[in-house]
Amino acid sequence: MARALYLQSGGVTAVLNSSACGVIETARAQGLSVLAARDGFAGLLTEDLVDTDAVPTAEVARLRDLPGGSFGASRHLLPTYDVAPEAWQRVRDVLAAHDIRCVFVNGGNGSMMSAALLAELPQRLGYPLAVVGIPKTIDNDLLSTDCSPGFASAAKYLATSMREAGLDLHSMAGGQRVFILEVMGRHTGWLAAACALAAAQEGEPPHLVLLPEVPFEPERFLAAVAECLMRHGYCAIAAAEGLVDGAGQPLAEQQHAAIYGHEQLGGVAAYLAQLLRDRLQVKCHYAMADYLQRAARHLASAVDLEQAYAVGAEAVRWALAGGSGVMTTIERLQDAPYRWQVGRVALSLVADLERRVPTEFIRADGLQVTAAALGYLRPLIVGEQPPAFCEGLPDYRPISWPAVAKRLPAFDLGRT
Amino acid sequence: MARALYLQSGGVTAVLNSSACGVIETARAQGLSVLAARDGFAGLLTEDLVDTDAVPTAEVARLRDLPGGSFGASRHLLPTYDVAPEAWQRVRDVLAAHDIRCVFVNGGNGSMMSAALLAELPQRLGYPLAVVGIPKTIDNDLLSTDCSPGFASAAKYLATSMREAGLDLHSMAGGQRVFILEVMGRHTGWLAAACALAAAQEGEPPHLVLLPEVPFEPERFLAAVAECLMRHGYCAIAAAEGLVDGAGQPLAEQQHAAIYGHEQLGGVAAYLAQLLRDRLQVKCHYAMADYLQRAARHLASAVDLEQAYAVGAEAVRWALAGGSGVMTTIERLQDAPYRWQVGRVALSLVADLERRVPTEFIRADGLQVTAAALGYLRPLIVGEQPPAFCEGLPDYRPISWPAVAKRLPAFDLGRT
Repeated sequence: MARALYLQSGGVTAVLNSSACGVIETARAQGLSVLAARDGFAGLLTEDLVDTDAVPTAEVARLRDLPGGSFGASRHLLPTYDVAPEAWQRVRDVLAAHDIRCVFVNGGNGSMMSAALLAELPQRLGYPLAVVGIPKTIDNDLLSTDCSPGFASAAKYLATSMREAGLDLHSMAGGQRVFILEVMGRHTGWLAAACALAAAQEGEPPHLVLLPEVPFEPERFLAAVAECLMRHGYCAIAAAEGLVDGAGQPLAEQQHAAIYGHEQLGGVAAYLAQLLRDRLQVKCHYAMADYLQRAARHLASAVDLEQAYAVGAEAVRWALAGGSGVMTTIERLQDAPYRWQVGRVALSLVADLERRVPTEFIRADGLQVTAAALGYLRPLIVGEQPPAFCEGLPDYRPISWPAVAKRLPAFDLGRT
Repeated sequence: MARALYLQSGGVTAVLNSSACGVIETARAQGLSVLAARDGFAGLLTEDLVDTDAVPTAEVARLRDLPGGSFGASRHLLPTYDVAPEAWQRVRDVLAAHDIRCVFVNGGNGSMMSAALLAELPQRLGYPLAVVGIPKTIDNDLLSTDCSPGFASAAKYLATSMREAGLDLHSMAGGQRVFILEVMGRHTGWLAAACALAAAQEGEPPHLVLLPEVPFEPERFLAAVAECLMRHGYCAIAAAEGLVDGAGQPLAEQQHAAIYGHEQLGGVAAYLAQLLRDRLQVKCHYAMADYLQRAARHLASAVDLEQAYAVGAEAVRWALAGGSGVMTTIERLQDAPYRWQVGRVALSLVADLERRVPTEFIRADGLQVTAAALGYLRPLIVGEQPPAFCEGLPDYRPISWPAVAKRLPAFDLGRT
């Protein structure tokens, strides 16, 4: 094989670069040259490429310790051939100009749709290309994999934060306080569910877990908070940003405009806090973790780091074995002690599909998760591999990736 | 000396219990018996006391690893003698019933006013009592001490969060994104200033730091964000919750009702985000750290943990030497390498007073801090002492403090 191209697509995570590390180190060991695109599919179209081969081994190894996307990520996706044939021609030209015969797409379900499209390039334009997807999303909503790298570290961060804020709240419990932690999750409640790991004992925070899978019922919610305050003197709540009412409408929207096909939500905690103040006359604090939850490499899960690396490494092995049109996956072999292995699934079985929290993971009243959910979640967050610290802060010095000289005329991204 | 009483007053921190550990371990080594009040001054009035002497040494040592207030904290303060002489009589009765001749008040500037009042008990009611304050507040607004234990750990958490979220934002920089981290600080910008530590290089996040000490000017702010977007492609902002306009009015209020004499603020980030969307048409995300910033023991500063312990231990030594009416302090001897020692100051010089960020720490345009500020802040956040982890989460099992049998009739807190 000539050369491979690696790209990071969609929102970043605390361990996305660990997958990049798995790709580059495995490829290097096999003698496979790897370029990377800047800013995901955008860089593939604009021919903004970097040369990973030129970077020393020790620098590549530092990828494991860096949150974010070291090559730049974007939500720019590949349009369908019918919509934009000139973009496909451009992709073909860029790949051919740099002798790239394999593309690794590291992303979520939207990015896997682009990967699936790209895998049609040989049939469409007669250019020989292998495409292998590498899963990534804090949302954990990719189908056909036991979990998505990036999720477990966000889960560990949120569960730790809930446990810590819960202790704070409990210390000050004289005043019938409520605390809400708003977490990401537009359509799925995996991250909200993960907050439930914070409770080491029955009755500990979070007392309520609100998922987008369960239409929000104000009266049921208020009754549950009132009962919790009566019993414990305080109430801690994990709430997904994407909560909807009975009609499927988001409870609160930070911004109505649809951006890249996704609504940018937020403000659920503010909505719930106001409801609680109005109806129960309680003091209510809330935190919005926002980017912090997907960037917190300082508290990454060791299991997650290892799995992120493994799905990257497996993608290289599979491509070298002649595979294409698949995404690498995590397969769970056993809960306790936890055992897993990497696997593969056809891109068509994950592209643009969404895995929601299943009914058996949600308590009958819809306000908490079940023991089955905790059994699924618990092994994922185990282990700590903190980055090096320098002067009191994590050492996240960026890695410098040398640009590859362009060989083609400029291309206007606005055309795609 | 007969017995001492320790109490935690006001909002809790990640290292408050380290001060408790310093008090109890030092007292135990000197043969001084220590009771503790539940829920701060509330427990002193209601005779809700616990016996620290009955708890094994290894359990007491675990205090260093627990965020929050292990004995419970509250914002209940001691009223003045003129307002509530019956409360003073009650305090005298509780102290006498348990042979308590010394009280350690671990709190912020409001709590130091109560400590100063309590120190008048001998003159007012003829009861022999020593009172020693122990500084604590994430706000860092106590006068006469170089810093306040609790602040540095919140600072380390926020600077780390800003650095991590900044990398996330930078990875996705294609889209002219703005990120705002809203931090605590009703009247002082110490925590917002601490976010500036995140930048290892010129031009790194946070690009702007907004302090309550500087009246907010929308046009100046918008121009600075626009320039930052032009130069860097993204803009990260640290904003104190207590930002005010030119007339001194808070930009946004989560809740108007005054609670315990403090306004419960919040919502500045939402205000700023809306302003940026309306005026600059940029995408804007924000995070509100809220309780997370004062509870994040997992990322506590080792310097902070040590200083919190030291001011507790010094309070015991000073009381045993016959001192009263003082608060222990941190005195800085040198910036780099950082050297410090414990000291003392009269309670009257700290009670109800507030230290704001000085002019020389604020850049002339009011939108960033100076090198002098960084020089002050940098040594405080150094060192990591993470708690033990169990199953992927910090081990914060609570310590069980046995209750002391009550000897007095019940007392209605509503009377104070």
